[in-house]
Amino acid sequence: MSDDADAPIDLRSDTVTTPSEKMRRATANAPVGDDVYGEDPSVNDLEATAADVLGFADALFVPSGTMGNQLAARVHTERGEEAIVEAESHVVNYELGGFAQHSALQTRPVEAGERVVPSPAQLREAHHAESLHRPGTGLVAIENTHNAKGGVVADVADVAALGDEASALGVPLHLDGARLFNAAVAAGVDVTAYTEHVDSASVCLSKGLGAPVGSVLAGSEAFVADARRARKLLGGGMRQAGLIAAPGRIALAENVERLADDHANAERLARGLDGIDGLDAADPETNIVLVDTSGATLGAEALVERCRDVGVLASAFGRETVRFCTHLDVDRDAIDDAVARVARVV
Amino acid sequence: MSDDADAPIDLRSDTVTTPSEKMRRATANAPVGDDVYGEDPSVNDLEATAADVLGFADALFVPSGTMGNQLAARVHTERGEEAIVEAESHVVNYELGGFAQHSALQTRPVEAGERVVPSPAQLREAHHAESLHRPGTGLVAIENTHNAKGGVVADVADVAALGDEASALGVPLHLDGARLFNAAVAAGVDVTAYTEHVDSASVCLSKGLGAPVGSVLAGSEAFVADARRARKLLGGGMRQAGLIAAPGRIALAENVERLADDHANAERLARGLDGIDGLDAADPETNIVLVDTSGATLGAEALVERCRDVGVLASAFGRETVRFCTHLDVDRDAIDDAVARVARVV
Amino acid sequence: MSDDADAPIDLRSDTVTTPSEKMRRATANAPVGDDVYGEDPSVNDLEATAADVLGFADALFVPSGTMGNQLAARVHTERGEEAIVEAESHVVNYELGGFAQHSALQTRPVEAGERVVPSPAQLREAHHAESLHRPGTGLVAIENTHNAKGGVVADVADVAALGDEASALGVPLHLDGARLFNAAVAAGVDVTAYTEHVDSASVCLSKGLGAPVGSVLAGSEAFVADARRARKLLGGGMRQAGLIAAPGRIALAENVERLADDHANAERLARGLDGIDGLDAADPETNIVLVDTSGATLGAEALVERCRDVGVLASAFGRETVRFCTHLDVDRDAIDDAVARVARVV
Amino acid sequence: MSDDADAPIDLRSDTVTTPSEKMRRATANAPVGDDVYGEDPSVNDLEATAADVLGFADALFVPSGTMGNQLAARVHTERGEEAIVEAESHVVNYELGGFAQHSALQTRPVEAGERVVPSPAQLREAHHAESLHRPGTGLVAIENTHNAKGGVVADVADVAALGDEASALGVPLHLDGARLFNAAVAAGVDVTAYTEHVDSASVCLSKGLGAPVGSVLAGSEAFVADARRARKLLGGGMRQAGLIAAPGRIALAENVERLADDHANAERLARGLDGIDGLDAADPETNIVLVDTSGATLGAEALVERCRDVGVLASAFGRETVRFCTHLDVDRDAIDDAVARVARVV
Repeated sequence: MSDDADAPIDLRSDTVTTPSEKMRRATANAPVGDDVYGEDPSVNDLEATAADVLGFADALFVPSGTMGNQLAARVHTERGEEAIVEAESHVVNYELGGFAQHSALQTRPVEAGERVVPSPAQLREAHHAESLHRPGTGLVAIENTHNAKGGVVADVADVAALGDEASALGVPLHLDGARLFNAAVAAGVDVTAYTEHVDSASVCLSKGLGAPVGSVLAGSEAFVADARRARKLLGGGMRQAGLIAAPGRIALAENVERLADDHANAERLARGLDGIDGLDAADPETNIVLVDTSGATLGAEALVERCRDVGVLASAFGRETVRFCTHLDVDRDAIDDAVARVARVV
Repeated sequence: MSDDADAPIDLRSDTVTTPSEKMRRATANAPVGDDVYGEDPSVNDLEATAADVLGFADALFVPSGTMGNQLAARVHTERGEEAIVEAESHVVNYELGGFAQHSALQTRPVEAGERVVPSPAQLREAHHAESLHRPGTGLVAIENTHNAKGGVVADVADVAALGDEASALGVPLHLDGARLFNAAVAAGVDVTAYTEHVDSASVCLSKGLGAPVGSVLAGSEAFVADARRARKLLGGGMRQAGLIAAPGRIALAENVERLADDHANAERLARGLDGIDGLDAADPETNIVLVDTSGATLGAEALVERCRDVGVLASAFGRETVRFCTHLDVDRDAIDDAVARVARVV
Repeated sequence: MSDDADAPIDLRSDTVTTPSEKMRRATANAPVGDDVYGEDPSVNDLEATAADVLGFADALFVPSGTMGNQLAARVHTERGEEAIVEAESHVVNYELGGFAQHSALQTRPVEAGERVVPSPAQLREAHHAESLHRPGTGLVAIENTHNAKGGVVADVADVAALGDEASALGVPLHLDGARLFNAAVAAGVDVTAYTEHVDSASVCLSKGLGAPVGSVLAGSEAFVADARRARKLLGGGMRQAGLIAAPGRIALAENVERLADDHANAERLARGLDGIDGLDAADPETNIVLVDTSGATLGAEALVERCRDVGVLASAFGRETVRFCTHLDVDRDAIDDAVARVARVV
Repeated sequence: MSDDADAPIDLRSDTVTTPSEKMRRATANAPVGDDVYGEDPSVNDLEATAADVLGFADALFVPSGTMGNQLAARVHTERGEEAIVEAESHVVNYELGGFAQHSALQTRPVEAGERVVPSPAQLREAHHAESLHRPGTGLVAIENTHNAKGGVVADVADVAALGDEASALGVPLHLDGARLFNAAVAAGVDVTAYTEHVDSASVCLSKGLGAPVGSVLAGSEAFVADARRARKLLGGGMRQAGLIAAPGRIALAENVERLADDHANAERLARGLDGIDGLDAADPETNIVLVDTSGATLGAEALVERCRDVGVLASAFGRETVRFCTHLDVDRDAIDDAVARVARVV
């Protein structure tokens, strides 16, 4: 088993990818300047490119997706408003309650159920005008792909309908697009098919796109100007950040189309795991495979541990579900190897 | 119609009651002192009595039920925790998002459905330990009677089970008992049958009990000491507050049992309104009658307006529901009169 | 000494006054309604009168001066701004850091020194426009009379000059006028001589004016509308508040001119105490006498304790200073009696 | 003049340094992992080294000095406490009021005057225990070298005395050591001569030390564990952060002693500028030169502009003061060149 341990197949998350040689060279050669003064050419290039790709007027490089989402909430709202959020989204469950902490927002979770984003009808019902007694709705936040639901992809039509409704209600709509490129590739559309319906979007460079560090938050010029100041408040202003912006720029230029490989690998992994007695793998839409362990006499933690013993890393996702995530450091052979290893221990 | 207008029957809320002659005399003669120094005998008497009645070590007089609930959240939690709340409760919908604003809490709403309080299983599912990514659960808040559900009464057994679970999880349980005495009278139990299962309770003196101003927040000595300081922060420290504590003391001593009359009147009102073609009145458990207007071609706002035209005041409660609330300023004859008036205009 | 103990002369604060018979009768007979609905005639009357007296478009009844000041800060500012405050003012030292807690404001204290309010030059120096790195100035808050300096009175010309400067800078100016009427009486001017230069003012009814409970916050219509909503957030919405508004109305109508008596008594008290060997009493401008105990071998706490032993109550104010405060429950004879008692024990 | 413009001598700040070839190679070759999982060897190495160098049990890599300071405030305090800060320090003037915004702290500025840190007597006077009315002191924050005073160096004995007093009062002491290594080199001591007297310290790698991005926050194990979680809240959790930690590690190992060159250059620059008619340069203690322009008929902004015209970049620092900052990208010849250029335009 020591052999397995030497080369673990890491399927915990697509955040674990390490930068390619090309990225490392880009880092080594990046022209840099002081980004707090707005003088880092590599950062400026990344921001301009990201704005262009995402279809917004401007964009801001931030150290993490969490910061991108929190800045969006802060800039779009006034204190004491309410944010309508999909019930199982990242901003609710994995950002330490930042909407309340940074922006004094009350979150109103809406279960999108089969869909990825709330329906216009759900939005209308959850929306409230400000009154003497209650906060007015100041923000709607959605996530695409939706991590907790298993990397599922929002229908473009659903996002369009929600965007129209939000717009009619005069409420800004923010898209947590940590894995937005996965969604676009799976849906066979340009990312702007999604982003044209929202007021701001954050996109992670460090997940499926394979960059080492950072995310981009995009929106109107005024929005990004405010976000730049709020980034300083959160301590996200960096100096010669071009060193990490440069590989992010490559990620954006070169690693989008290849996400299809991750999706194919996830499909292959799901079929393999589903074939193991006691495991039930959902059919993946992108690069995330959720496996139900209830058929085996195993809980999620136990399966994760057994997998680790044979050099396969995964994440417990609740009590009976385990998440496997494909990415550019795991090829088709590794997927087959992983399935074989897991089969041995279940 | 001028006759109706002269003497409107006010069923908007039990907060509209005006103090009795006895209360006014008590106010006029109340021994007072500076309560910020803890020297107001009437306040001290009220607080001691309320603590005793509610079965807690200590209690604090506050200007409103909202302040009572907000102080409880503040004292029980640390910033950045999560509060599990019933989805339609007052703290979520009528306190301006105070949990987020005053205490930086993320609220996690749980739909209690047919029940008034979440079940232990719901609590277990909604509960989370603190992790690197998510807030830990720092508070559970329930409401009894439950206003938005129509003044429904929590089963003592449900509260006991929830209290046991909260206690096992080490999470404080706060009871918004704005109308707790209504619940106890309707359930035929002492209020302590409820309060013995919670860590703190706020009770309004100014609703069904008929006092002019104020609420009481009760809990352990340490809890109340902290709440006293937090009350100062919120600006709730008052000077010769005995003037309003004295009638509150009478309300507590004399107006509990008579809530049964309000409940009987609500029952009578519901039967009467339900008999009107197009109106569908839910069977009330306490003093709140919710009337569904969808059978008539009327929305809630329209019914409220027509009622007002004939001197009956009620509150729109969503798009198609109207709330009527009985209280000690409305007797049985007035109820019959109100039904007759409403029948005329629907 | 038991004789002294039976009838302590309470000079701790002017907050300890108990309501007059006339106030008690007014309370007993006050027409009331539900003030959360805006229907309490006594509250409405008080608010209209206070607005008129203070020269503003509107006013709001609040449970305490602290709430008045905190609401003003909240309404005038946006989160993250900076508030310029006199260094020893009440909002800095006695409101639990509420500017930071309720409104996320950084306070920038300015020492007014001999003056009561900062000079225009000090304001210009302390003022900052918003930049990428620093908060912009969002509020200036002053206090008149100034409690910590010993009830000293701001020059009208100083307030006018500061108001002009604040106005030129576009920064709102709030006046904590807990004892504003003392200032106006001492300066021989109408209160509007001060208030015409500020954007909002809070005034306590429960200090020198002798009302049992409450303060009034006055400003423009839009300001008061926002403050009314924020009052709800802080839990300051009360129901039949007319019971305490009615005596407040009397306080405003009848107890202003007589503040001159308190000032004369303070003058008499200061002379008397200053004549006691070892005590050094500052010459009072209004109703507050600060006594330096450093000449005696006594600290402040020790003098307060000895006074208490002979039935004179006062407050330690730092290590070597004791504050005595005159008010309408202490007449000239009581002052002479107090001096005699204190002389016995120093 | 185009010649000057081609090669501006950038003395605006030591943050503008660009990474050396060695740093770039280190970046290109850095072993990395997912730092949110704690698996980035380069980050772990940097953190261990920094903890060791600074004499603490643990350390945390953060994107900026602002984040380091804000995390320290958050972790050391409970909401609503008071922070004693030097009046002109970075946390007051250049971090967007973050103490109030992130931690609900009221700041109490103390003017250290000739000294860099408040004296023990000043601390005792500014310190307050928590009471019913006022926040208790929860933090003392100092800065060394002190930027706004002109890069002046705290006496070790002063820091020791302040640390003893803070410790006696039970209040944590945080050191904003953005340029702590400049202080240590100038004072001829090890950095631990300072840090042994404080509870936490943040140190910038991206200023004089010449790293491209980031700072380190050091303290006890428990402190750093809490700071790690709070870093996530602020959005400072980065993935393969080793790319920027690696050059930071070099900065720490190799660029400390050479700060003496920057100090010598600053000395030379000050002498040169002081020799220009109308300019008055303070004698620098480290790498910051403050020049008083009041002798010339120039304001600060005008001098900055004229300098820029001849290819010398500096920063306005108030109305009549200009800051010049030396660093490793500016050698002795460039200093002489800069003086000559400035002389031409004043």
